[in-house]
Amino acid sequence: MTVLGVDCGGTNLKIAWVKESGEIIRSALEPINFKRSVGQVVADIASRIKIFLSRHGASGLRNLGMGIAGEIDSAQGIVRFSPNLGWKNVPLKKLLARHLDAKVAIENDANCAAWGAYCLDAKKDCENLICLTLGTGVGGGIVLGGKLYRGSTGSAGEIGHLTVDHRGRRCSCESLGCLESQVGAWGLIQTAKEGIESGRAPILKRLLKAKGALLSPRLIEQAAKNNEPFSKKVWEEAGECLGAAMASLVNVLNPDRIVLCGGVSKAGNLILNPALRTLKERAFKVPVKRVKVTVSKYDENLGVVGAALLSRE
Amino acid sequence: MTVLGVDCGGTNLKIAWVKESGEIIRSALEPINFKRSVGQVVADIASRIKIFLSRHGASGLRNLGMGIAGEIDSAQGIVRFSPNLGWKNVPLKKLLARHLDAKVAIENDANCAAWGAYCLDAKKDCENLICLTLGTGVGGGIVLGGKLYRGSTGSAGEIGHLTVDHRGRRCSCESLGCLESQVGAWGLIQTAKEGIESGRAPILKRLLKAKGALLSPRLIEQAAKNNEPFSKKVWEEAGECLGAAMASLVNVLNPDRIVLCGGVSKAGNLILNPALRTLKERAFKVPVKRVKVTVSKYDENLGVVGAALLSRE
Repeated sequence: MTVLGVDCGGTNLKIAWVKESGEIIRSALEPINFKRSVGQVVADIASRIKIFLSRHGASGLRNLGMGIAGEIDSAQGIVRFSPNLGWKNVPLKKLLARHLDAKVAIENDANCAAWGAYCLDAKKDCENLICLTLGTGVGGGIVLGGKLYRGSTGSAGEIGHLTVDHRGRRCSCESLGCLESQVGAWGLIQTAKEGIESGRAPILKRLLKAKGALLSPRLIEQAAKNNEPFSKKVWEEAGECLGAAMASLVNVLNPDRIVLCGGVSKAGNLILNPALRTLKERAFKVPVKRVKVTVSKYDENLGVVGAALLSRE
Repeated sequence: MTVLGVDCGGTNLKIAWVKESGEIIRSALEPINFKRSVGQVVADIASRIKIFLSRHGASGLRNLGMGIAGEIDSAQGIVRFSPNLGWKNVPLKKLLARHLDAKVAIENDANCAAWGAYCLDAKKDCENLICLTLGTGVGGGIVLGGKLYRGSTGSAGEIGHLTVDHRGRRCSCESLGCLESQVGAWGLIQTAKEGIESGRAPILKRLLKAKGALLSPRLIEQAAKNNEPFSKKVWEEAGECLGAAMASLVNVLNPDRIVLCGGVSKAGNLILNPALRTLKERAFKVPVKRVKVTVSKYDENLGVVGAALLSRE
């Protein structure tokens, strides 16, 4: 039994045939232009799925799961709001059904990643898992008692918008001091910019010029590895915020596992060491002893695998 | 069918016969001296329960639920650690079974309060509920999908130790800037003391002298109602911290209900207005529209009723 997963990013569509074990049989990455009408975009998505299916000789599509960034009403199959796609109240499930003869499930992309992490990384020895996607923003998904936890309106798991510093930086969600404003790539970049402008980050400034690149977590990582105190501190502080948020999660939800993924998690020990140290300093002893924190090795596939496997739940 | 609930405070034992509806038939408050050996205390508890039963002509005890502040392993029936009682790894369930011919369940007291709030306040129209007990410390309990959520080691629900200000005041748990350090009675009193010492709280100082009382949330409430700017600010800031924590809970757990109880919640609008305003400012729109925040009218009975009803789960 195989299922189809689709991860709908802001510029790409990732499509994958997935075994029930979570193993990917075939996958493809298709660029999508979302700056068209919803109808055009949906028709395009459907046609790319059909082409993928026929190209790989797959016969009969029964279940399709799709992950999308934003507020998703998975029960009704509606995209309530997706800033990435510019969609508001789009009945995606119904629209796709016009093109595809399959049972379609749609879900928030971080929820998909959490389900993917649970199925690929943890199912055997884990009941309660939290997944944090550390990208431009910070997303999250929660699996409790072996089931994806969606909350009362399907909005649960917005861990990026856990307050860690209630008078802190203004977040993309308008609140103050959310985890995302400190640990999301945009937050890191903002901190780095402030450092460059105030002259405290000369190595970072040099790297930025030399590479002709955009300011990114990867560049801040390089500056830190070149021993620039400012850039090292950026990671140290981001790690401390991540650790404080994980401690809150451990104290409140007492999970077996926390799985980290996404671009920012690639900074490795630069962010992990302060995060794990802070987690241990802050959380209660018994639950912190139980929780295992890992960076997922499946990373970029968690979302598409989770979407596929959720379609069968 | 009736069940017995026992709420084991630091100085009192509250015992209640409870109907399955949550209604209390009879109750008693018994002082207990915990400064004796565990064996002596347990024998005393058991004998007081027996006296209560015989006094009220109750025949045949089948289920007894007991709530205790601290880390409880409810599956094994062990009090892992209770600072209030000075107990560590006490196999309470086993010890009580030597004295009482009944099925005994023990549970963290805030979890009992959450279950009490769910059964008394919310069962009809609610799947997911969070209860915050705002007392000397801040406790919490979580009901998800109509079941008490205990987490992987039974430690879930420690909402008082959610970080709201990661560089804030040192908490009783050794972490920094926990909700409890700002909103727990001990945190409020510490803030008030600082105000008195620095001369910013003259009305509070006068009330304290006039009443010959100890500094308490009640007294800070009176000073605020006497229009002292400092004391008003104490409540304003406590409310903002409470609101930030509730926003985190709404974003992460997306509950139908948040129920507040405990002495500090008695300050009413002084703390509720800034809390609700902050919650609304900070949380995501769809889940914040769903959640209903209330102060429980059953307050002091939530724990004992919850303990009783949990014994039947």
